[in-house]
Amino acid sequence: MNLSLYTEPSRFSEPHAKGKHVVIIDVLRASSTIVHACENGVERIIPVAHVEDATKLVPTLDREATLLGGEREGIKIDGFDLGNSPLDYTPEVVEGKTLVFTTSNGTVAIAQSAPADEVIIGCFLNLRAVVEHLLTTRPDEVAILCSGNLGQLSLEDFVCGGYVVRSLEERLGSGLVRNDGAGAARSLAGCLPDIEGVIGSSTHGRKLAALGFEDDLEFCSRLDAFDTVPVVAEGRITGKIRNRR
Amino acid sequence: MNLSLYTEPSRFSEPHAKGKHVVIIDVLRASSTIVHACENGVERIIPVAHVEDATKLVPTLDREATLLGGEREGIKIDGFDLGNSPLDYTPEVVEGKTLVFTTSNGTVAIAQSAPADEVIIGCFLNLRAVVEHLLTTRPDEVAILCSGNLGQLSLEDFVCGGYVVRSLEERLGSGLVRNDGAGAARSLAGCLPDIEGVIGSSTHGRKLAALGFEDDLEFCSRLDAFDTVPVVAEGRITGKIRNRR
Repeated sequence: MNLSLYTEPSRFSEPHAKGKHVVIIDVLRASSTIVHACENGVERIIPVAHVEDATKLVPTLDREATLLGGEREGIKIDGFDLGNSPLDYTPEVVEGKTLVFTTSNGTVAIAQSAPADEVIIGCFLNLRAVVEHLLTTRPDEVAILCSGNLGQLSLEDFVCGGYVVRSLEERLGSGLVRNDGAGAARSLAGCLPDIEGVIGSSTHGRKLAALGFEDDLEFCSRLDAFDTVPVVAEGRITGKIRNRR
Repeated sequence: MNLSLYTEPSRFSEPHAKGKHVVIIDVLRASSTIVHACENGVERIIPVAHVEDATKLVPTLDREATLLGGEREGIKIDGFDLGNSPLDYTPEVVEGKTLVFTTSNGTVAIAQSAPADEVIIGCFLNLRAVVEHLLTTRPDEVAILCSGNLGQLSLEDFVCGGYVVRSLEERLGSGLVRNDGAGAARSLAGCLPDIEGVIGSSTHGRKLAALGFEDDLEFCSRLDAFDTVPVVAEGRITGKIRNRR
């Protein structure tokens, strides 16, 4: 397995995506929210890059069965039903619903990955499930695409990517060939075992804490809490539940 | 001091560069070669992004006093006097000369930094001198711009950047405010103390070793070997010798 990690999506153009199986990581908070919504029975998620795409889409859908979710600058968008706090995506709220979803970085990474062979969503919450999925499907070419923050590396995404690399390496040994980004992230994950500390010290984590989202930080740092692997296909995300305990 | 580290230059556009003091890091090998050439008395270096720019420039210069140096794919360019092996830039070869220089990644980073207030060249060879320079000039906004490799993170540049961050942090304490890239690189530098191991295990290091440049890897891993801080100004690089022991 050839494994490349990208620190942010702006250079992840078509030649990089093509033929690859992509894991999109946006720990704070798009990946964590998508995983939680899928775990809690959302019917499908329609990721869109721009707020206007979301508002244009709504009149074409059954409004009763549709939720509008997402953020800009960390805050719920005006007129939307939900923000980007994973804790709001409870079974009572999301079960059986269609979620139209837009965030600052995560949905950009999803759009960039369109040419890939497979796109799945990962974070600390479903880390083991993502790794098991990759070990079962055994693609030759895997890309870990960190969402980053407006074109820059995000500590929490980079370290989470490193945890994926480390888990794959433990199982595949020399069968795993990594790029430097994957190697650097893996080494960093090895020396930063305190996930909540990583998330809390990150730029985005500190910003969310200042906005009052401390509970989200604690939630997003839970390792292997869920077995859902959200899969992006034909512009829709649906949850694939693996290894239900 | 606000310190931002960028893993590669493609997103380092004008708004990022403006008002900043930039340290360009290309351990393998542009920064190391520039530092060695300056240390050994080169008169000035003219960095150019493309091979054609170099060959167009030569007829306008005194050929006797001019050297053409650089690489593509790690190899000396046809018709050039020198490749990108820092060991070739001895006093006998470079003293008093003008060097027209083009490399795959380093000179791209230099071009991207043009709008900055100051641009200096760093690597392991002159790490302490770079840090002392920043501590003396005390700019408010510093960017460490890793050259990376064709738009991706390079392990050796990222770790070297982390060493700079760590040294600044030791001296400035809470007076240093870092972005996540700088924080990640610093943490990684802290857990990878074997510089020659880092360079040897990097993608670019392994490629250079396969091309027969093992001696360059050993040379580029020497920490604080020189006190030269090359400064880029008005399209020219000149060496500023600091703290001569």
